Amino acid sequence: MANSKFEYVKGFEQPDHLMPNTWIVVRIDGRGFTKFANKYEFEKPNDKRALDLMNAAARALVTEIQDITIAYGVSDEYSFVFHKLTTLFERRESKLVSTIVSTFTAYYIHHWSTYFTDTPLSPPLPTFDGRAVCYPSIQNLRDYMSWRQVDCHINNLYNTTFWALIQQGGKDGTEAEQILKGTLSADKNEILFKQFGINYNNEPEMFKKGSVIFRDYELVEPGTHNVAQEVEQMAGEPTQQSKTQRDNDKKKRAKARVTVEHLDIIKDDFWDRRPWLLSNKPGRVPKEP
Amino acid sequence: MANSKFEYVKGFEQPDHLMPNTWIVVRIDGRGFTKFANKYEFEKPNDKRALDLMNAAARALVTEIQDITIAYGVSDEYSFVFHKLTTLFERRESKLVSTIVSTFTAYYIHHWSTYFTDTPLSPPLPTFDGRAVCYPSIQNLRDYMSWRQVDCHINNLYNTTFWALIQQGGKDGTEAEQILKGTLSADKNEILFKQFGINYNNEPEMFKKGSVIFRDYELVEPGTHNVAQEVEQMAGEPTQQSKTQRDNDKKKRAKARVTVEHLDIIKDDFWDRRPWLLSNKPGRVPKEP
Amino acid sequence: MANSKFEYVKGFEQPDHLMPNTWIVVRIDGRGFTKFANKYEFEKPNDKRALDLMNAAARALVTEIQDITIAYGVSDEYSFVFHKLTTLFERRESKLVSTIVSTFTAYYIHHWSTYFTDTPLSPPLPTFDGRAVCYPSIQNLRDYMSWRQVDCHINNLYNTTFWALIQQGGKDGTEAEQILKGTLSADKNEILFKQFGINYNNEPEMFKKGSVIFRDYELVEPGTHNVAQEVEQMAGEPTQQSKTQRDNDKKKRAKARVTVEHLDIIKDDFWDRRPWLLSNKPGRVPKEP
Amino acid sequence: MANSKFEYVKGFEQPDHLMPNTWIVVRIDGRGFTKFANKYEFEKPNDKRALDLMNAAARALVTEIQDITIAYGVSDEYSFVFHKLTTLFERRESKLVSTIVSTFTAYYIHHWSTYFTDTPLSPPLPTFDGRAVCYPSIQNLRDYMSWRQVDCHINNLYNTTFWALIQQGGKDGTEAEQILKGTLSADKNEILFKQFGINYNNEPEMFKKGSVIFRDYELVEPGTHNVAQEVEQMAGEPTQQSKTQRDNDKKKRAKARVTVEHLDIIKDDFWDRRPWLLSNKPGRVPKEP
Repeated sequence: MANSKFEYVKGFEQPDHLMPNTWIVVRIDGRGFTKFANKYEFEKPNDKRALDLMNAAARALVTEIQDITIAYGVSDEYSFVFHKLTTLFERRESKLVSTIVSTFTAYYIHHWSTYFTDTPLSPPLPTFDGRAVCYPSIQNLRDYMSWRQVDCHINNLYNTTFWALIQQGGKDGTEAEQILKGTLSADKNEILFKQFGINYNNEPEMFKKGSVIFRDYELVEPGTHNVAQEVEQMAGEPTQQSKTQRDNDKKKRAKARVTVEHLDIIKDDFWDRRPWLLSNKPGRVPKEP
Repeated sequence: MANSKFEYVKGFEQPDHLMPNTWIVVRIDGRGFTKFANKYEFEKPNDKRALDLMNAAARALVTEIQDITIAYGVSDEYSFVFHKLTTLFERRESKLVSTIVSTFTAYYIHHWSTYFTDTPLSPPLPTFDGRAVCYPSIQNLRDYMSWRQVDCHINNLYNTTFWALIQQGGKDGTEAEQILKGTLSADKNEILFKQFGINYNNEPEMFKKGSVIFRDYELVEPGTHNVAQEVEQMAGEPTQQSKTQRDNDKKKRAKARVTVEHLDIIKDDFWDRRPWLLSNKPGRVPKEP
Repeated sequence: MANSKFEYVKGFEQPDHLMPNTWIVVRIDGRGFTKFANKYEFEKPNDKRALDLMNAAARALVTEIQDITIAYGVSDEYSFVFHKLTTLFERRESKLVSTIVSTFTAYYIHHWSTYFTDTPLSPPLPTFDGRAVCYPSIQNLRDYMSWRQVDCHINNLYNTTFWALIQQGGKDGTEAEQILKGTLSADKNEILFKQFGINYNNEPEMFKKGSVIFRDYELVEPGTHNVAQEVEQMAGEPTQQSKTQRDNDKKKRAKARVTVEHLDIIKDDFWDRRPWLLSNKPGRVPKEP
Repeated sequence: MANSKFEYVKGFEQPDHLMPNTWIVVRIDGRGFTKFANKYEFEKPNDKRALDLMNAAARALVTEIQDITIAYGVSDEYSFVFHKLTTLFERRESKLVSTIVSTFTAYYIHHWSTYFTDTPLSPPLPTFDGRAVCYPSIQNLRDYMSWRQVDCHINNLYNTTFWALIQQGGKDGTEAEQILKGTLSADKNEILFKQFGINYNNEPEMFKKGSVIFRDYELVEPGTHNVAQEVEQMAGEPTQQSKTQRDNDKKKRAKARVTVEHLDIIKDDFWDRRPWLLSNKPGRVPKEP
């Protein structure tokens, strides 16, 4: 075939299979979102429409890609977690990252007008970059999730105080920054409360905790499942699961409601009551009320 | 800071800088486009609206990302070439691939309604995956481009004949496949001409050659520049270019028209007359007519 | 400095840090050892001198490199296991592999004359290649070790029967191969016993089980330690261990006897009684008898 | 087969094929050679026996591994260059690096007693680590080689002066360091000449230039070959070379004398007169005198 003379160039493609039996986290970030947020006049410190749009795009993505077991979003970033035994796209990094990024972007652009009803998009369009990181153990994975949620808390407390000083306190940016330099959490809580009558605890959960997305099944009693141990023993060997079992799981997942919540994902309780997040075995679909 | 306990998880990120002094090609492909094309009733063998949309998205992307020196598209795929000395995103693979994929997807969704005026998009949305491949030499890069264009030719000749047999010849898919099995180019040309009165040479250039996108400057006389030799000697050392020079180049690039053409990119002539594609030094902007 | 013009070439070195919190196995293999074994007339199916030399080189290596927690050898291969939290050479793959291979080779050449007293080495010299593989969980690591020991068993039973057929049965290689084709373990055991009066169970442990090397401490009662769970929770974060603690551990390891044994490493018992192999915490040094 | 249950662990091995069509440099370095040199009382600033031993080991290695086109050594390091089209070990990094390191170590230990006739080796033995770096173009490769030779010059001039100050000038290490701080090459030359009557130009070539190893053919007239251009066009495609041609080349290489020289490898002349170093096509074997 005439093509054979050039086909050797395929030999330059490098395999990029991620290590088996590790949790894959794909995190995406808005590119140049400070500028973008200014262009579309996002509200400060949090724009509910923008966060709802992020969540809508992420929810559509999790619904489409069943291999994602949980996702966590804050501000203009979102982390998507693939179960450690996933074999989606043979675990090829470029394929996983680019599919996530493309799907997320597609829904973000598509749903824009639902959340920003009055301001149509114009070039340059909002875009996202992404990368994959592997975590060998449940402890590492949960520490990653905790890291993002602690970050959310720290940033949101800072931003809430910063913008209160500006919007209600009449300071400019440099003054606000100066006031906050070196303050601890308690100090910021006090500024909010004493100067602006804001009880930080009463701020919306979505702002304080970020958003977590997962398939929703009936909660279990904490302590009835030792998922961690069971999961660490899943070694990555060819699964003994029958095809019937896999098809059943697939149907159960398709039926499950993909939910967006604003919960504490640092404490054990969240994970203990939702063993399916780590085991990847669908739970019981709740009865319709 | 409270976060430090979890921050160790950042240490699991692996660096992914692509080898310096190599040409970076990011190729994107439509995901599940056979099904997608059916859903939106793309014309066979080529849907002009769909190709124009691909080109519009690619053109917007090349306009935005100046480090892309040339792009080539066919069907639902597009290849974007970064100059071998690019330092965009410190040559990080995930960043390059995800930015390209996200930007392309954003424009594809955004411009959809311009090209498919009567059929609004509905989920699942069109998405793209992508990967990067590095090529050490100009010869490798040009062979890559030739490979894609030869592929375009082979596929288009096959598809044109296949769909003529079906649409005009009344065959079904299996019959058409059977007829084409083992045929050479000459055979297909003859079927087209004798049975359907189609002279393949008269088919639209976009279908036969695919689309090539680049910044357009004044063509030079072939033989006046030995770009290849000059470029191979650019070794990747810290460039001696002054900041002024770089700023000038940037302005020239921003001013240049990004053009979509349907040309033979296999022969030397295309490259000889456009030395800026390989040298990355902007040419002379053509006078306005 | 005059050198700066060329120093940019350092930028082509790619980082190769192995994923944190994973077990690192470096396996080395003799290069062209079939030919080498013929040149020095190794005894078939097992040459005790050659195996003792392998073990001596491996033992010297484990003694020198404290970060190796266990090693397993069979025939002309040896696997060295670094604890999942090791930070030796910042976990750089090339550094780990090349150091192991170089040290092993050095001792193999150096000790050659101790085991092959009558046959001095002459070029081409015996050499080894090596590679590193990471395993995320204890289950994966133990399955790796089991894989090698099962391989040892299968190969040794085959080779023992094969060479009995030749050396005692007067067959040639092709005949012996033909006889063994499709046989199960039971068949080979029967051939050995009925035809040659060999009870395979009475073969030397080193031939049947391979060799396992580790630091020797007092065995513990099985069931008193749940090492697996404890180890999986070591997450790779900056260790809280004090410097004093680390120095103490180092001294204990230096004092421990590095032992070469021929034990079953597939069953739990081996690991349950030697918790230090997985925990990396030195056990109690046995009292001198 | 009983083994299948564990064999999944093979799936954790990651491919590590180096990019095609790039020059592969494997550099090895002595591990802890400062301490090692003290133990065996190496002469300062250069120990001829130690350098001769390095060269003997490298020469044996280059003789054995025909795919190495050139090697360069200085002090306790050696760089081995594989031609950009080599397919040895399918260009697997671990295999290439570990084979080089093991072979070098083997000959170093084996030949020790030839060069250090009075001082037998004792543990810990001398060992080497190594790594591979790829260079896409001839310019990069030559810049790498120049980098090493400039380094050799800078270090040797420094060390020669430093040790003259100590050995002949009666200074201690700290004093010598202080004297040399901030000096240029000219200053060091002057110190050597004025204070110690040493004309640096008359120092042994091996100390000043390091050692370069290659297969020796008849020199060609500079300017008669344009190797660079020809080589850059070798693209990595399946070679059109016939098997006969390859076998002939192999024989010619086997016949060629592997030589150790102390030449300037920075200037063009060295490469122009030895086109085979870059083209990998054996030159004419010189007539026996």
